[in-house]
Amino acid sequence: MITLSGGTGTPKLLHGIENIIPQKEIAVIVNTAEDLWVSGNLITPDIDTILYMFSNKIDLKKWWGIKDDSFNTHNQLKSIESNESMMIGDMDRATHIIRSDFIRNGDSLTIAIQKLSALFEIEANVMPMSDDPLATMITTEQEEMHFQDFWIKYKGKPNIINISIKGIENASISKNAIDALKSNNNVLIGPSNPITSIGPIIELPKMRNILKSKKVVAISPIIGNKPISGPAAKLMQAKGFEVSSIGVAEYYKDFLDVFIIDKKDTVKLSDFKNIGCEVIRADTLMTNMEKSTCLAKIAIDAFKNM
Amino acid sequence: MITLSGGTGTPKLLHGIENIIPQKEIAVIVNTAEDLWVSGNLITPDIDTILYMFSNKIDLKKWWGIKDDSFNTHNQLKSIESNESMMIGDMDRATHIIRSDFIRNGDSLTIAIQKLSALFEIEANVMPMSDDPLATMITTEQEEMHFQDFWIKYKGKPNIINISIKGIENASISKNAIDALKSNNNVLIGPSNPITSIGPIIELPKMRNILKSKKVVAISPIIGNKPISGPAAKLMQAKGFEVSSIGVAEYYKDFLDVFIIDKKDTVKLSDFKNIGCEVIRADTLMTNMEKSTCLAKIAIDAFKNM
Repeated sequence: MITLSGGTGTPKLLHGIENIIPQKEIAVIVNTAEDLWVSGNLITPDIDTILYMFSNKIDLKKWWGIKDDSFNTHNQLKSIESNESMMIGDMDRATHIIRSDFIRNGDSLTIAIQKLSALFEIEANVMPMSDDPLATMITTEQEEMHFQDFWIKYKGKPNIINISIKGIENASISKNAIDALKSNNNVLIGPSNPITSIGPIIELPKMRNILKSKKVVAISPIIGNKPISGPAAKLMQAKGFEVSSIGVAEYYKDFLDVFIIDKKDTVKLSDFKNIGCEVIRADTLMTNMEKSTCLAKIAIDAFKNM
Repeated sequence: MITLSGGTGTPKLLHGIENIIPQKEIAVIVNTAEDLWVSGNLITPDIDTILYMFSNKIDLKKWWGIKDDSFNTHNQLKSIESNESMMIGDMDRATHIIRSDFIRNGDSLTIAIQKLSALFEIEANVMPMSDDPLATMITTEQEEMHFQDFWIKYKGKPNIINISIKGIENASISKNAIDALKSNNNVLIGPSNPITSIGPIIELPKMRNILKSKKVVAISPIIGNKPISGPAAKLMQAKGFEVSSIGVAEYYKDFLDVFIIDKKDTVKLSDFKNIGCEVIRADTLMTNMEKSTCLAKIAIDAFKNM
């Protein structure tokens, strides 16, 4: 099984998956379209959450960054003058430096993440979706900005006119991700933002066709008409999707076999008829490790029953 | 008066000078040949010591870095794996980031240092000697390495075969330094390492000729046959100079008018006959602010009496 991952939701799910499957058998293809050079080093937010989760470094309250980290450089930058809107912890910054040193020395992002995984004693196979530089850009009424600026600097407030992923037309799926997809028939899409977390993975040239040949189970990140967390609603609307599980399923319908929606979701199963997927109801709110493990088990079992 | 500055000695002297002359009348041309990109950002060690000194941030015990700084990123790098041999503090790193962000946005080093000076509320005119990238390289029996690696990573231990300043033949004196030299007749050379701190400033094309037309007062960083601090002895030997005040004066003799040596220095005044400079004896060990101010006064008075 390969998991496609983005922000907070899927790492929480993977936290449960590693209670069921040994880490060395877990393969994750991670969104890189939110990556950004900040303060001299490459930040890969979605990959780092996965790395910190698998190495037990993650701050389990925020689900980003390293637990008990300090922010001395960041606070000093803020006190002087800085464009560092992202909260970068001091230990977190060390990760960025090590990764970027690998890249400055000529390594691809794939190799840099492999080396970082080894340093963090992670056995799971954490793969960037692509080694090509990509950037999720948000067009507001005023300007075009990087997604990180939209989400952190402007707190997700401006109206969105358009979302585009700069460079995606000419980007390639990373070689390791291609190889993993060749030798795996089962793809799990975690409950991450469908537009800016999962979307860039799906929109990579050739990816939709690859997914059509796979068994695909996805978990909805939306309950009713509200995302569990983050800016998915605004982004889905801007892309013309209904903000609901139906909207997410519509986006995935090319390749979706089983869709897991929340048991409290008021959507009717009959609404999914046009999608052509099986629908499973489950508790998708992973508020603790036990609930993450339960949901992971349901997702894994979905492949077995297919 | 313009002061040429490198490492620890001259900043200590400037600490005294600002007790006598208002900061806004102080101009300093600083060595940049030890500058280096480390962990994603440009480190300018000699400039930063000056900036931290003028803004009262300097760690007065070590005479580098910011007082009461933490080393959380550096320690994390060390604990994982890192090429960061230089001890970079968390607040110090913020300075590097701000400077490098200016440069990444297209500013010259001169402009970046002007902006940083303004942010630090420094009124003195702190000028990089050049905006061109330069690197002091040390050739040992085994390899060629950057001076910072020789001094910090290898603790100054390897035998030195040669010292060269990469890029110096084609480097230009920074425009602001040229302008300052045009409007100032007095140049003070602080007691910094003559080879790797003052040397790169002097060896910039056209600088020796400019200095010949000025009144030049220099302070010896050597007492007897020992430098007050740092690796000057090994470097002077490798360059074929006697490790003594005489050796320093020999290196400066083209333009040297007054030479201040330590009152405990056993060298005889008659030994300076061939140099053709006036020699003043003074207490050059600046172990506290009072002593820095005394030495600064003697240096300033030397110009008045010329």
